[in-house]
Amino acid sequence: MPKQELFIVKIGGNILDNDLALEQFLQHFSTIKGLKILIHGGGKIATEIGKQLNIVSTYHEGRRITDAATLDLVTMVYAGLINKKIVAKLQSLSCNALGLTGADGNSIPATQRNSQPIDFGFVGDVLAEHINTNFLDQLFSQDICPIFSPLTHNQKGVLLNTNADTIAATLGIALSKNYTVRLIYCFEKKGILENIADDNSVIPLLTPTTYEELLKEKKLFEGILPKLENAFSAIHQGVNEVLIGHAKDIIANTTSTTIGTIIRRH
Amino acid sequence: MPKQELFIVKIGGNILDNDLALEQFLQHFSTIKGLKILIHGGGKIATEIGKQLNIVSTYHEGRRITDAATLDLVTMVYAGLINKKIVAKLQSLSCNALGLTGADGNSIPATQRNSQPIDFGFVGDVLAEHINTNFLDQLFSQDICPIFSPLTHNQKGVLLNTNADTIAATLGIALSKNYTVRLIYCFEKKGILENIADDNSVIPLLTPTTYEELLKEKKLFEGILPKLENAFSAIHQGVNEVLIGHAKDIIANTTSTTIGTIIRRH
Repeated sequence: MPKQELFIVKIGGNILDNDLALEQFLQHFSTIKGLKILIHGGGKIATEIGKQLNIVSTYHEGRRITDAATLDLVTMVYAGLINKKIVAKLQSLSCNALGLTGADGNSIPATQRNSQPIDFGFVGDVLAEHINTNFLDQLFSQDICPIFSPLTHNQKGVLLNTNADTIAATLGIALSKNYTVRLIYCFEKKGILENIADDNSVIPLLTPTTYEELLKEKKLFEGILPKLENAFSAIHQGVNEVLIGHAKDIIANTTSTTIGTIIRRH
Repeated sequence: MPKQELFIVKIGGNILDNDLALEQFLQHFSTIKGLKILIHGGGKIATEIGKQLNIVSTYHEGRRITDAATLDLVTMVYAGLINKKIVAKLQSLSCNALGLTGADGNSIPATQRNSQPIDFGFVGDVLAEHINTNFLDQLFSQDICPIFSPLTHNQKGVLLNTNADTIAATLGIALSKNYTVRLIYCFEKKGILENIADDNSVIPLLTPTTYEELLKEKKLFEGILPKLENAFSAIHQGVNEVLIGHAKDIIANTTSTTIGTIIRRH
């Protein structure tokens, strides 16, 4: 029997911070046929609420350090405010959404990152083999669409802040055993651009070979490299294809006539 | 085939505001054998965080009016902070907890309360026949323990603040068709007291007849009457028994040798 197709879609702050863009995205997302998972990141609202609560985050080389107060903040904003608004909206669009952190149903166990050399605090690293795929299979069999906020847990009672791009890739790898996974990263551009100044210079297809060439030629914008690393890691570990594109193109990007950059093994 | 037993346990602010009491309660709760649901209320932390965010709630006759800012606040604190901390803790105690609002899995659809005569804002009223019992059955079949925060939704994209005692009673009524339900309200006393000044004067059993007598004699503390109304409404609509007791007695109160006040049809 051929594997069922599964779309794993990640949206970030640029959509979450804009009510109208989020509403439009969720309407499009709700029309995607078949199995799907949504993973959302944070957004500026966590920083804004943090300021009002006098929670001042510290950073190491641009990466936030999650102390206890920051963990409470992101638990409130990511797992509460953002996640539940998305769930309620999707329910109104006839998508049977269920909001989750990695603690819920023990869906994503994680390990707190080693405090050496840099102590990032309550930050979790995840492994595909630890994902509770049985639980997700059960949800799919009930036509339920999981909506993940970027929090995991250490199975010892502690929630952990975890990068949403990484959660998406790790879920994709774990679920690719039983599903044909297309992992879709939505960001603020139409796709990976050959020329950062030209929004229409989307590279339609990247393979390990063409990626190597672009890297050698230093043609890629540095900010996109971590996302591409997640993407290639995913396709090398079972994910069928990764698509990087704009949230407003989500419908086309779930079909065979994609608008963004598609990443395949060959 | 006899119905399976189901414990529906509600905890309130007095436990949620005390880390040590909450931890002890969750440890006890995790040892309850068989099917169980936990419903938690709010607690002082929502009010404290609200103050810092300059969200000043207004009240009508002691009942909070849920405006848009207050709804965001309770979504953060109830569905985020409190709910996910409970879930992570229970997971560490080998209880496969799953945190929910009534929007998740469309578990508890509700109707926003009529704005006449008093506009309570984003407050939802629930009906037992609208509870998505199929979804809960599926969770039980996977040995998952649902943990409800006191939020529902109107199926049109809006979350609604809903009294946790009422959610507990309504879940009890809905689930009593397929389960033998004991609904347990945990509060700050050992049970309903015959003499409010004497903590050891717990009334072990209340039936509609003895309740009527106590009401006539005006022997009951007024503050307990809404809880008792929920309790009698529940047993008249299928819930097998309601127990009102202290959170620290939760283990005994799930057995036949109860410490609190048990409420039965006769």
